[in-house]
Amino acid sequence: MPFIRTVFLVSDGTGITVEMLGHSLLSQFEGIEFRKITAPFVNSVEKAEEWAVRIAKSSRQGERPIVLTTLVNDPVRAVFQSSGAFVMDFFETFLSPLERELNAKSTHTMGRSHSATDKAEYQQRMEAVNFSLAHDDGITARDLPNADVILVGVSRSGKTPTCLYLALQFGVKAANYPLIPEDFERDTLPDTLRPFVAKTYGLTIAPERLSEIRNERRPGSKYAEFDNCRLEVSSAEAMMKREGIRWINSTTKSIEEIAATIMAETKIVRRAY
Amino acid sequence: MPFIRTVFLVSDGTGITVEMLGHSLLSQFEGIEFRKITAPFVNSVEKAEEWAVRIAKSSRQGERPIVLTTLVNDPVRAVFQSSGAFVMDFFETFLSPLERELNAKSTHTMGRSHSATDKAEYQQRMEAVNFSLAHDDGITARDLPNADVILVGVSRSGKTPTCLYLALQFGVKAANYPLIPEDFERDTLPDTLRPFVAKTYGLTIAPERLSEIRNERRPGSKYAEFDNCRLEVSSAEAMMKREGIRWINSTTKSIEEIAATIMAETKIVRRAY
Repeated sequence: MPFIRTVFLVSDGTGITVEMLGHSLLSQFEGIEFRKITAPFVNSVEKAEEWAVRIAKSSRQGERPIVLTTLVNDPVRAVFQSSGAFVMDFFETFLSPLERELNAKSTHTMGRSHSATDKAEYQQRMEAVNFSLAHDDGITARDLPNADVILVGVSRSGKTPTCLYLALQFGVKAANYPLIPEDFERDTLPDTLRPFVAKTYGLTIAPERLSEIRNERRPGSKYAEFDNCRLEVSSAEAMMKREGIRWINSTTKSIEEIAATIMAETKIVRRAY
Repeated sequence: MPFIRTVFLVSDGTGITVEMLGHSLLSQFEGIEFRKITAPFVNSVEKAEEWAVRIAKSSRQGERPIVLTTLVNDPVRAVFQSSGAFVMDFFETFLSPLERELNAKSTHTMGRSHSATDKAEYQQRMEAVNFSLAHDDGITARDLPNADVILVGVSRSGKTPTCLYLALQFGVKAANYPLIPEDFERDTLPDTLRPFVAKTYGLTIAPERLSEIRNERRPGSKYAEFDNCRLEVSSAEAMMKREGIRWINSTTKSIEEIAATIMAETKIVRRAY
């Protein structure tokens, strides 16, 4: 039986920051299974006390729980610090040194990280999401001049989720355009893309993996056959090479890794944090 | 002129965690403008040294730069610590106390936070994204039994971006179904939704804001008229109330806040971290 520890991820906002921090830290420990419980919107002493009861209960059932928090309010944080759990607070640890370095006081405003405070920035993200949906899978060529980046690649190489992630996370307008058998027969890039080669970025994928993914969608089809996948992938790579289009291999990469690589290599300016 | 400080966000992976942590901390300071530069994939001493040169250069141009890092490799981190900048590392600070608490050594594996290490989990996210796209705006009722949640609300109340975020961030299968004038005339929920009321969740929005958003899409249309928006919103709210459907007002909320609230209130189990 694996060793199990319970971890409470406590935030006065959405909990998304503390979840990410917790996930990052805990993924550095192998052989321990973590049972993660998120406690979002803990923005009052009352709510903190409710959670403290639950934490104390969990404490009586085994090893003392671990509590990671991103709480900016001192009285709220204090409730957890006296809960008997092993507590680490992100803001408490880093805000003081930062205040000294900046020679400024922090505002201790709760729930700031993921609030919709910057309306212009928020609008950019929403527009980017709409843009990605409207320009998914080559639906339309209209507005391509306004794209920050155009992803190309064979069907099921990961273009759509990457575009959506670029939009939601970075506020980037990402269109995507499939490279299909007809393009490989003509052996030229689709005419529509011609004027935009400079902002085109490719995704490629191992034919074995592509065949697996396509077989889930259309089992036993020619589309999913390994030989067909191999041919499509090699044709797409040859075409991108000839056109000077940079590409990334998505086979073993997460959407986050693909998106971050594209951001770094194309030097697109992000519109949202 | 506002006071400007340059902040380098350094990671051996995608940089997404350090960007989020940095954003959380810096949003606690008002009146200071931060110029943020992300340095992703800094996974070798050589790459660290290239960035250290850039940091030193920035240092000579004004206030010393702030460097926030999530680096698990000691030699890589050391390069920044001797760069003359104000450096805070998120992992170094928390990993040691956590190692003591867990009585275990951390693996110091680089780029773990957003890698595609857990293939099953990754698959869940991709399936959830495909599900959201296939079930956007009531496109199909097929597979609704497999939805974790079905968002309802008037057109442009924020359903689509919320569904996409739920899929990408939490691996949750979220469908969305619009409430349209025909539904309000009949004054009943669409038949398709009837069997799924228990897992339906509503979005509402202030009519003023709705009219603004719709006017951007279809200027001067009846669809965008304030009176029409007010009528649609009040009809939708009355219908949700009658059916016992919980809802959230999206007007001043970010997608993250809406998504986190839905996760907390419906107690959907997340399938991905």
